[in-house]
Amino acid sequence: MEKDTLDPWGEGHITNYERLHQEFGIERLDSLLPTIKKPSLHMRRKIDFGHRDLGRIFEAVDKDKPFAVMSGIKPSGDFHLGTKMTADDMIYFQSLSKRATVYYCIADVEAYNDNGLSFAESSKTAVRNVADILALGLDPERAVVYKQSEEVRVMRLSTIFSSSVTNNMLKAIYGERQIGLYLSALIQIGDILMPQLAEFGGPKPVVVPVGADQDPHIRLARDLANTYKEDFRFVPPSAVFHRLNRGLDGSPKMSKRTPGSSFSLNDQPAVAGKTVMSAFTGGRASIEEQRKLGGEADKCPVYDLYLFHFAVEDDYAKRVYDECYDGTRMCGDCKKELAALVKKYLEDHRKRRESMMKDAEELLKTSRKRLAAIAS
Amino acid sequence: MEKDTLDPWGEGHITNYERLHQEFGIERLDSLLPTIKKPSLHMRRKIDFGHRDLGRIFEAVDKDKPFAVMSGIKPSGDFHLGTKMTADDMIYFQSLSKRATVYYCIADVEAYNDNGLSFAESSKTAVRNVADILALGLDPERAVVYKQSEEVRVMRLSTIFSSSVTNNMLKAIYGERQIGLYLSALIQIGDILMPQLAEFGGPKPVVVPVGADQDPHIRLARDLANTYKEDFRFVPPSAVFHRLNRGLDGSPKMSKRTPGSSFSLNDQPAVAGKTVMSAFTGGRASIEEQRKLGGEADKCPVYDLYLFHFAVEDDYAKRVYDECYDGTRMCGDCKKELAALVKKYLEDHRKRRESMMKDAEELLKTSRKRLAAIAS
Repeated sequence: MEKDTLDPWGEGHITNYERLHQEFGIERLDSLLPTIKKPSLHMRRKIDFGHRDLGRIFEAVDKDKPFAVMSGIKPSGDFHLGTKMTADDMIYFQSLSKRATVYYCIADVEAYNDNGLSFAESSKTAVRNVADILALGLDPERAVVYKQSEEVRVMRLSTIFSSSVTNNMLKAIYGERQIGLYLSALIQIGDILMPQLAEFGGPKPVVVPVGADQDPHIRLARDLANTYKEDFRFVPPSAVFHRLNRGLDGSPKMSKRTPGSSFSLNDQPAVAGKTVMSAFTGGRASIEEQRKLGGEADKCPVYDLYLFHFAVEDDYAKRVYDECYDGTRMCGDCKKELAALVKKYLEDHRKRRESMMKDAEELLKTSRKRLAAIAS
Repeated sequence: MEKDTLDPWGEGHITNYERLHQEFGIERLDSLLPTIKKPSLHMRRKIDFGHRDLGRIFEAVDKDKPFAVMSGIKPSGDFHLGTKMTADDMIYFQSLSKRATVYYCIADVEAYNDNGLSFAESSKTAVRNVADILALGLDPERAVVYKQSEEVRVMRLSTIFSSSVTNNMLKAIYGERQIGLYLSALIQIGDILMPQLAEFGGPKPVVVPVGADQDPHIRLARDLANTYKEDFRFVPPSAVFHRLNRGLDGSPKMSKRTPGSSFSLNDQPAVAGKTVMSAFTGGRASIEEQRKLGGEADKCPVYDLYLFHFAVEDDYAKRVYDECYDGTRMCGDCKKELAALVKKYLEDHRKRRESMMKDAEELLKTSRKRLAAIAS
């Protein structure tokens, strides 16, 4: 956070979440949390630290009003732990109400631009990605999946928005960028606001679960919702922000581009287990020291994995934390325990995903038909 | 031409067409003209003064190979004389070969952005605009009409292109602009290159008839055709450039925004007649002087109307020109003669257009169906 803007495209890390509240006006989740009847795992464990207008969503839940949950994936590879976090959030919000609809964007234009992937390649990966999110628990009955390259409504919105944003606005939010990234941002704003178009039932609350580095998109989406409120009656979209997974190799952020920093949900369990075993930890220089002083779970990416993903019960996560700090849990054992959990998880996930491949193809097909049928 | 860039969005005039050849590398039509078997009225009369790669189109005609003719209209009003010029060119190129297909874009997103017109309003105007071009002679059998807001392929192309143009490239071509105009340019490049996509039969020559001020779009389209030649095998698009209609009120360029500078093809004939009668001319200060020195047809927007539009026979246009310069044609009579021609033309056009309204609706409908049916 040394810079004046957050970088949604960067590899940068966020060391000071406090500044996000003070400088960018992200609201604290702490104050809302007591009012939330069924907080998610991320909320209970303070992995979600901030939000914008999230109260609106729980209000819709309470009043049984429709709302949307929006996110997307760049189909450039398999689900990794970061993608899983967003997916977990989407599934959580979907589960809160029968009137929640998930909008899930397959960002194949970005995959072409950033990774040189053809639409045909992206199309194949997309099926696997959708199978992943179904395996994680998404209800396909209340989900709309679409490809960026096929959804003219998103493109139309971003083109419309482009006429009212100025270069200075964009520079203030994103820093000085090439037009391609600015347009990519406007397309994401189109994604975020599309669920409120008349053909999708009109204005409604929308929640976007994102990593903290994505806040610029949320701010711009809210600005533009306001700019176009007369023509479209947009409700400013809500967001919930989660902390970013630190890299297992000690790097500040998990990244597909840094091998060893993470693993995918479809890696060989044995390989992922090895990545865990060679992870950086919050341990001390020697076993003696660690027995005396305790480890530092708060600095440890291995503990992050327990907390964010693999210690499903809150008690278990707390026990790992406490044992670390009181010096009774050594890093080697702790990693072995996690590696076993990870392997088991990946084996189970792989089976669930396999069984979902047909459903994924079906969901993509029915969504496509449904979207084409909606008059534009 | 005082600036370093041409301004496709400006009201500016071009006084020195010579500089377009020297500074921007627009090729002279003069050298190609002798090889053209059936030159258009615009070509014969040097209204078309320049081109880029136009030889490619006549080669396709000669070899009976497919090619496309591409242009568009912003549905913010009725056809005026500038729109008619482009339409005349499109119809000319379409008439050259049975293998020519016209792609005609209804720029309704631009109409929303620039003029605040809803898509529903634009949709109504579009029917009238299409009836206009049918009345002028377009063959609907070899024409594809589409709305910018509905054509995802154009949007997809412009998004793809946005990732490889830099702000500096855009600045060099268009000058410093807001992102909205840059994106609008990229969308026009998408329009120009769409006919070469696989779903439209793949790479082929495309000719874009344009006013000289639109050359920046042509240059960028040709640059991008080259950048993406590996993935798309684009043939660099061709263009033919016509001189701009001078305003009847003495303003440098006809413009919908300057009343008295022009008239629409659907104005009341009597009203258009009056606009002609009060037009600025290339006449002298007094009748005596004009008898002695002759008028100056080359500076006269009234003569432009004969030459560009209403003197259908070349001999007639030449006679008007000669009589002006030898001092036997006085401005009052000349305008009266033109006003009568204009009135007759508008009356006939109105009838033709009325009879084409159903066909226009039909063409829009069938094009829409055909485009939706083409797998993307």
